[in-house]
Amino acid sequence: MSDVIARACVVGASGYSGALAAAILWRHPQVSLEAVTARSDPGRRLDDLYPRHRVPLELESFDADRIAAGADVAFVGYPHAAAAPVVAELLGRGMRVVDLSADFRLADAATYERWYGPHGAPHLLSDGVFGLTELHRDEIAGATLVANPGCYSTAAILALAPLARAGLIADAIVDGKSGVSGAGRQATETTHFVSADENVTPYKVEGHRHGPEIDQELGLPVTFTPHLLPLDQGLLASCYATPARALEDEELKAIYADAYAGEPFIELASSPPGVRDVRDTNFCRIHVSRSAVGRVLCFAAIDNLWKGAAGQAVQNMNVMLGIEETAGLGAAPAAAGAPR
Amino acid sequence: MSDVIARACVVGASGYSGALAAAILWRHPQVSLEAVTARSDPGRRLDDLYPRHRVPLELESFDADRIAAGADVAFVGYPHAAAAPVVAELLGRGMRVVDLSADFRLADAATYERWYGPHGAPHLLSDGVFGLTELHRDEIAGATLVANPGCYSTAAILALAPLARAGLIADAIVDGKSGVSGAGRQATETTHFVSADENVTPYKVEGHRHGPEIDQELGLPVTFTPHLLPLDQGLLASCYATPARALEDEELKAIYADAYAGEPFIELASSPPGVRDVRDTNFCRIHVSRSAVGRVLCFAAIDNLWKGAAGQAVQNMNVMLGIEETAGLGAAPAAAGAPR
Amino acid sequence: MSDVIARACVVGASGYSGALAAAILWRHPQVSLEAVTARSDPGRRLDDLYPRHRVPLELESFDADRIAAGADVAFVGYPHAAAAPVVAELLGRGMRVVDLSADFRLADAATYERWYGPHGAPHLLSDGVFGLTELHRDEIAGATLVANPGCYSTAAILALAPLARAGLIADAIVDGKSGVSGAGRQATETTHFVSADENVTPYKVEGHRHGPEIDQELGLPVTFTPHLLPLDQGLLASCYATPARALEDEELKAIYADAYAGEPFIELASSPPGVRDVRDTNFCRIHVSRSAVGRVLCFAAIDNLWKGAAGQAVQNMNVMLGIEETAGLGAAPAAAGAPR
Amino acid sequence: MSDVIARACVVGASGYSGALAAAILWRHPQVSLEAVTARSDPGRRLDDLYPRHRVPLELESFDADRIAAGADVAFVGYPHAAAAPVVAELLGRGMRVVDLSADFRLADAATYERWYGPHGAPHLLSDGVFGLTELHRDEIAGATLVANPGCYSTAAILALAPLARAGLIADAIVDGKSGVSGAGRQATETTHFVSADENVTPYKVEGHRHGPEIDQELGLPVTFTPHLLPLDQGLLASCYATPARALEDEELKAIYADAYAGEPFIELASSPPGVRDVRDTNFCRIHVSRSAVGRVLCFAAIDNLWKGAAGQAVQNMNVMLGIEETAGLGAAPAAAGAPR
Repeated sequence: MSDVIARACVVGASGYSGALAAAILWRHPQVSLEAVTARSDPGRRLDDLYPRHRVPLELESFDADRIAAGADVAFVGYPHAAAAPVVAELLGRGMRVVDLSADFRLADAATYERWYGPHGAPHLLSDGVFGLTELHRDEIAGATLVANPGCYSTAAILALAPLARAGLIADAIVDGKSGVSGAGRQATETTHFVSADENVTPYKVEGHRHGPEIDQELGLPVTFTPHLLPLDQGLLASCYATPARALEDEELKAIYADAYAGEPFIELASSPPGVRDVRDTNFCRIHVSRSAVGRVLCFAAIDNLWKGAAGQAVQNMNVMLGIEETAGLGAAPAAAGAPR
Repeated sequence: MSDVIARACVVGASGYSGALAAAILWRHPQVSLEAVTARSDPGRRLDDLYPRHRVPLELESFDADRIAAGADVAFVGYPHAAAAPVVAELLGRGMRVVDLSADFRLADAATYERWYGPHGAPHLLSDGVFGLTELHRDEIAGATLVANPGCYSTAAILALAPLARAGLIADAIVDGKSGVSGAGRQATETTHFVSADENVTPYKVEGHRHGPEIDQELGLPVTFTPHLLPLDQGLLASCYATPARALEDEELKAIYADAYAGEPFIELASSPPGVRDVRDTNFCRIHVSRSAVGRVLCFAAIDNLWKGAAGQAVQNMNVMLGIEETAGLGAAPAAAGAPR
Repeated sequence: MSDVIARACVVGASGYSGALAAAILWRHPQVSLEAVTARSDPGRRLDDLYPRHRVPLELESFDADRIAAGADVAFVGYPHAAAAPVVAELLGRGMRVVDLSADFRLADAATYERWYGPHGAPHLLSDGVFGLTELHRDEIAGATLVANPGCYSTAAILALAPLARAGLIADAIVDGKSGVSGAGRQATETTHFVSADENVTPYKVEGHRHGPEIDQELGLPVTFTPHLLPLDQGLLASCYATPARALEDEELKAIYADAYAGEPFIELASSPPGVRDVRDTNFCRIHVSRSAVGRVLCFAAIDNLWKGAAGQAVQNMNVMLGIEETAGLGAAPAAAGAPR
Repeated sequence: MSDVIARACVVGASGYSGALAAAILWRHPQVSLEAVTARSDPGRRLDDLYPRHRVPLELESFDADRIAAGADVAFVGYPHAAAAPVVAELLGRGMRVVDLSADFRLADAATYERWYGPHGAPHLLSDGVFGLTELHRDEIAGATLVANPGCYSTAAILALAPLARAGLIADAIVDGKSGVSGAGRQATETTHFVSADENVTPYKVEGHRHGPEIDQELGLPVTFTPHLLPLDQGLLASCYATPARALEDEELKAIYADAYAGEPFIELASSPPGVRDVRDTNFCRIHVSRSAVGRVLCFAAIDNLWKGAAGQAVQNMNVMLGIEETAGLGAAPAAAGAPR
């Protein structure tokens, strides 16, 4: 169509995030989805694997030359370590890349290695822009490689960044709560229905990989503990911050209102958000208040597959390409929030 | 905008179906949503009641004159009996009406009274067109009053109509399975989380009000039993038909393929559908097969609030207004199925 | 303790049914649990694998001689085909066996092979007593090998047997609905939380392995279709029978009351049962009624892991050993139904 | 039976906690359940209201004289404010009382009034012993009135008491996560399946009534925020404590091991607990660890209706009556943990 200004492909479209990225791109008004690839299931149709997404494309094997010939921007949905070399290949062929893995999120190579092991393309580490759109919009606009944040990181950082950037956090705790899709498509004991149903479990209590992302972006060491909840999509970050100085309620609210004024995907709510409020949308819904003793409580709800992964990836692509930031992300009846 | 050709309102927008109708209409490319009313909560904003729908309108009290002055088509989301007089008022002021209640679905007044009690506007009974779009498209196109079908009826009729219309059903059983939103927004012992969670229960086993709708449309007495499932949106009709004569597999498949050729919201699937496949969409996904002894098994999955209520209501409005049947119903990433 | 009259072991205790059998036996007042074995995880403690069961035994590798030396009765929780040779070994050493697999349920070898492939111990096929306790109590009392029925079979047979044994069924349909634990402990795409949650799906619509068990016990070909529900434990059989002759309501109720008089684990309920009513119990709760056109509707709810597997297995052992049939099965607050 | 040494009744048995107390007492080996009363539904049988509990008693209207004539100990399951006068009547007739409401939990009358309004029997405030069995066993043994703690309080206090009593907590945050049964049996917008399903929501973020109980028992002001989870029974307290001085891992573990040595219902686990691990049991399962920066993380899982209400109430009664503390609480296959 005449409005299409770029061609996209999704490398690694058989996982939850990659598949949703494909579904969003398939209906994007200014970008055409040219190809979807997967390491497993080549030849299988995506709408057979994910009927609900209704993307009638066949999964191909990955071929960097073919991809680069047919598309301008690539979304990479591989696991960490597997992503880096593929990203390098695509960048080397002149493509723009939004990487959904952790491979380019951490600026510090030593930190990366501590959490993930050897890096597959260390020379590119400094090229990745951390794709928390609301915090790094200008850098993303000029980037060729955007490192899309983790789902917990997205919610936690959006919840605490206004205070952190103002130097107002002395100490912070993040109690993260995620639906099971956050654990990925792999069938394991953890993701078995009978394990997760009617349950809630803390995990990786002595350190989760999203912790360093949160610390890096907020500039302070945060105590972060994730929990698995019996729901499919949705993530809540319950944040408890000790402020560096006393904050009145009015000042607190003003800090958040200022920080997120005009943000199309941030909603400041007058009551605590539930993850249902943002289900299948790219919104982050935030409520901030103070406890009786003056602690700051901030709750941020997102859909872990949308704002926590594929939705934010498309938001980043929109910024990279200079098109409307909400394009392709706000047309769903349950999703649109923009005035008509 | 220049494309808008009609103005709509939703009367009774505080229930699940009415609220979703408002959400769909709010984003409809050719219809403007002018007002939402409710019997309770006047003055409350719809996006406060249903954050997820993000419809920033205030609920008004019902005033037929005001409604008729500001809109061309009304969706009525009242309970049965309460709907009829309101529908009569709106029709009397020249509006077109899609009624989501049961008040105009049954052509036979005695049948209506047996299941629902006295009718509020019996002189209009024969004016209602049964709004199963795929079966009554032509009548709907010319109608001023469309009686939107029940959720169970929609799935059961779509599952069995191709056989029934060919006179091929000797006997049929429908085992209906619905998510809890089908029981409505009212908080009761039945809809309490602790009652429905980890449970499945048959109910109204000696007769459910959707039974007569199914019988009327299929022209035969069907044994229909509903069951409540622990999920929010989704409805599956598992249909067991004894064919009037032996049917080979090929003929069976051809009957369905012919009946639904070109239908934008019917999907004939090669394997049994799950309700997740149609969640938040207006699709009805159908699979038909034969048992070892030649019985016909047909499974139809819908989202009870979309194709089973608000989605089909908008589909009917589109047909009434002569605009694209899928308008406003196919833009969601998870919903669109049309080729680009 | 002085009351212990037999020693038991569970062979294959790492799966859901075997583990629950171990948990019940561990607290059984007249049987001691001597050993638990598993093909995987030898050395792992059962209360590490299943904290909730709190059985502080270590999983051993299978050794028929050691088992036979230390126990009198064995519960075999292996998959079909794997079970038969193990059962043969244990019987050969003089043990009594309750086999939870399908290997000895079908009297007809050809039927077995059609559904499961070659049989591992065909000479023993005729030795297995079908362990639907209520139907075969006398044979079970004298048996050395009891073939514990499938979960769907248990509910469907108990629902329809009173009519079938009276020759009153002309035709019957069973719509089966099971929680995810029925699919076993293996992590697969089907048992992944994100696949099963908010979903309901028919499966094996052209034939499920429990079908032949149902047909064998009822003596007629039943149309049986299973569905997977988003809950962990619980199974409902919704049965639709065309009676061989007209049945008045009173006669119908009397047939069931007579058939199940004095049965400690059958509850005839005045309204349709939900699976929550029998959760974590060995009860089968049944409601029978007639449709407007005289069809018989019968609903039977069980916990698929209790009456549908491990609970009934212990019930059968109790009968085999000549001890109180409810021993070990009725002490739970939520489970006991006997007068004090 | 010859073992029965006391007669009990449950006043207010139609709610979740009262009904479960009745179910446990009905099977208690040394206590007979003589009567159940309710403010609504007199004449209805408890096994009709709660089939799963299988308590075949009829709900009576409350009559203090009749109760006192037939029973020695009463469990009161009324809401706060309604409980106090009933408790006073029963105490005045010489009964022992376990009150499940909040009316006698707070020693300070002003604190009570701030959170609950005027107290119905202020002269008795100081007679109530806070019924956290593990902390107040000796006082409970001699008490006539035990104030059973709130569900959140039970988990939070058990999680932090070992450190608090050693004076080792500088500051603490409790992120509470509860299943929907914690919100009670009343059908409301909050407890509607469609509201709670696929959701997680913080609530009462600026102060919840269980907060003062936690503060009172720990002797320090704790930041406590509850969250509603999509499950029926289960409660997790995720506690984040800043220690008053550096604690090595070994010392930390030793503090908990010492504090809870010999406790029949406390399990110290080597990995974080899930609420499934304690479902339908009276156990509190605790895991303690340290974060990278030395913060103490402690997770305590209980079943909110058992250890968080009815189970602990019976545990307290056992202590009051001088019988085995675990009597009636450990016989369930999924519940027993004691060696045989």
